[in-house]
Amino acid sequence: MENFNQDWKAFENDLDQFQAKHKEYVRKLEEVESMKKKYSQEFNKLKKKLTDIQKNAKKLDFNNDQKKSEIGEPTSPNKESSGDLNLNLINEKINENFHYIRHVSDTFPRPNGLYLKIILGGISVSILNNEEKLNYKEEYEKFKLRITMICLILSFLLIFIRSYRTLDAAFNFLLVWYYCTLTIRESILVVNGSEIKGWWQAHHFITTVCTAILLIWPDSESYQLFRQQFIWFSFYLSIVQVLQYYYQKGCLYRLRALGEKQDMDTTIEGFQSWMTKGLSFLLPFLFFGYFWELYNSYVLFTISQMDNCHEWQVMALCIIFLILFLGNFVTTFVVVRRKYSN
Amino acid sequence: MENFNQDWKAFENDLDQFQAKHKEYVRKLEEVESMKKKYSQEFNKLKKKLTDIQKNAKKLDFNNDQKKSEIGEPTSPNKESSGDLNLNLINEKINENFHYIRHVSDTFPRPNGLYLKIILGGISVSILNNEEKLNYKEEYEKFKLRITMICLILSFLLIFIRSYRTLDAAFNFLLVWYYCTLTIRESILVVNGSEIKGWWQAHHFITTVCTAILLIWPDSESYQLFRQQFIWFSFYLSIVQVLQYYYQKGCLYRLRALGEKQDMDTTIEGFQSWMTKGLSFLLPFLFFGYFWELYNSYVLFTISQMDNCHEWQVMALCIIFLILFLGNFVTTFVVVRRKYSN
Ligand SMILES: CC(C)(COP(=O)(O)OP(=O)(O)OC[C@H]1O[C@@H](n2cnc3c(N)ncnc32)[C@H](O)[C@@H]1OP(=O)(O)O)[C@@H](O)C(=O)NCCC(=O)NCCS
Ligand SMILES: CC(C)(COP(=O)(O)OP(=O)(O)OC[C@H]1O[C@@H](n2cnc3c(N)ncnc32)[C@H](O)[C@@H]1OP(=O)(O)O)[C@@H](O)C(=O)NCCC(=O)NCCS
Repeated sequence: MENFNQDWKAFENDLDQFQAKHKEYVRKLEEVESMKKKYSQEFNKLKKKLTDIQKNAKKLDFNNDQKKSEIGEPTSPNKESSGDLNLNLINEKINENFHYIRHVSDTFPRPNGLYLKIILGGISVSILNNEEKLNYKEEYEKFKLRITMICLILSFLLIFIRSYRTLDAAFNFLLVWYYCTLTIRESILVVNGSEIKGWWQAHHFITTVCTAILLIWPDSESYQLFRQQFIWFSFYLSIVQVLQYYYQKGCLYRLRALGEKQDMDTTIEGFQSWMTKGLSFLLPFLFFGYFWELYNSYVLFTISQMDNCHEWQVMALCIIFLILFLGNFVTTFVVVRRKYSN
Repeated sequence: MENFNQDWKAFENDLDQFQAKHKEYVRKLEEVESMKKKYSQEFNKLKKKLTDIQKNAKKLDFNNDQKKSEIGEPTSPNKESSGDLNLNLINEKINENFHYIRHVSDTFPRPNGLYLKIILGGISVSILNNEEKLNYKEEYEKFKLRITMICLILSFLLIFIRSYRTLDAAFNFLLVWYYCTLTIRESILVVNGSEIKGWWQAHHFITTVCTAILLIWPDSESYQLFRQQFIWFSFYLSIVQVLQYYYQKGCLYRLRALGEKQDMDTTIEGFQSWMTKGLSFLLPFLFFGYFWELYNSYVLFTISQMDNCHEWQVMALCIIFLILFLGNFVTTFVVVRRKYSN
């Protein structure tokens, strides 16, 4: 009893202290939330103003140039009037300010895109802290790796276990679920400022549809004709995705290191040379995969031309694989060309 | 040019002011985030201590009672020793403190459950503001209503359009997606303190599986035997869900009103009488639906006994409908009994 009373006193003491601190916390929390709302509106207005000013500056620039060419002055920047000088200075400052604005926008929550609005509703998924953003990205890559490993093993087993359509369906169901989840996570990454190309997001939507169609393809002759090829394709894709993981992990690791000691030029160069090497290793595997997609499309087309093929799934998948090939090929080509030319 | 320069000056001025305010905001944001982490740990310790104290108090209570009965004192509270009085007082205070703790826990973020961790990763989905919590719940109910309306129309059309398995598949796909999305949104609600019974969450998981199996059921004789019944069942369910929406909306509306003027007993009574009326109206429809589930299970069982039925989907769905019937029936029965006895 003695002991108990002491414990109770100590607890009451702790609680009193906590209550005071908690009140302060709630007050600050509310304050910050109202600041968030207010300043984020002000910020948007500021951003709009800056965009307007940039537009006007461009117009002025253009008018000046025209006037000069009308009265025969050279348009080259050698002999500038004071107005030009002023404009150039302002243009420089405008660019600086855009840099600032990009930086600031990371500290305000961003609204969810349409897809997230439908799936999650209006819940805020913004991360306002850079460290945590990188953590979230890392988690996303790890998630992909885990599921990819499972797909690797399952597709390997399915190469040998051929005669159970239900097992195939289970595998396809996993793929549907996986790509569906990816689209959600990637939308969250985009809200948090990731620059994932629109195509990769579209890619995962289309793949979801693709695996869903595979799922409901009835067990017919046409299915059996394509089935083995698809399993091998999935197996190969899983391997490529493991390679992709190591590439993205390397990028992330170096990005994090860069963020910690921001202005060492050597490190940026190191990052870029590492990235180029990583890409060069990855690219042959990627392009082999893309041509396999094209080949899938071709095989499906020949199957669809057979007399005893009545399933609409064949033609639908044929078109989807063609789209995937085109999108992947063009996007990767453009991305890589830009990276190598930098 | 004149105008432009003025605009630019005004903008620079605004920007300066904003920068100062923004710095202050980021400082406060960081402060609140670190408070959140620190106090939420302290809070968890406090909660644990209180639970320990409650345990000890119960032990002491028990020991006292035993001692008294050993020396023949009455255990009734008429003649209490000062220790007893003290203990009773403390017990009362413990309960008060638990109330406080429940209230405080709404102001700290809660960790995601396993399911959300898998789908969304470690992103925080806590809403720390009561008003916004209610808004989110309302949005969830509206989302359900919208999709239910679409299902209502589609299932009505499918009653007449019978011969396209692909259209059925599209409808089933919508259902899979819908129930999948519901499980995500409901997990978010639970993180934010909603007391949805575990069964309803499980119910939406099981229904996802159920509709997925319907999706891959090949177009066979057994499918055609059950198909019409299922479409009618879906149609009926959509109607019931619209009724449910009006019930839940009414609850929410009254809950919100209660929250605004907290301590008017009359309103709580009004709320409960309204709820009882709403429930009484809803219940016959619900129970009719549950028995329809049982009937579905029975029909599927008879189909599975036919000689020319080779699809595993029949037996799987038979079991699932039975489970749904049992879970729904028991849960609703328990909930309603508790409500009427209050
Ligand atoms: C070509 C490739 C290696 C280039 O990667 P990269 O160097 O990260 O390219 P970018 O600089 O354009 O990346 C911009 C952002 O998009 C992300 N990203 C790039 N490709 C992505 C992909 N396929 N899926 C998801 N995110 C991707 C990057 O992580 C980066 O994110 P961040 O802004 O948060 O840092 C990469 O796009 C890739 O792996 N593509 C192949 C994917 C594929 O074909 N898959 C299916 C068939 S095998
Ligand atoms: C029986 C019923 C009307 C009682 O509803 P209620 O009065 O809200 O019940 P409770 O008080 O137990 O609700 C607790 C919480 O769970 C929520 N909830 C109850 N049933 C739910 C359901 N079926 N789905 C989602 N959430 C539900 C409530 O909104 C409440 O949320 P809150 O804590 O955020 O306020 C309700 O559970 C119901 O509609 N059940 C039937 C569902 C069903 O059978 N559907 C499929 C076949 S038709």
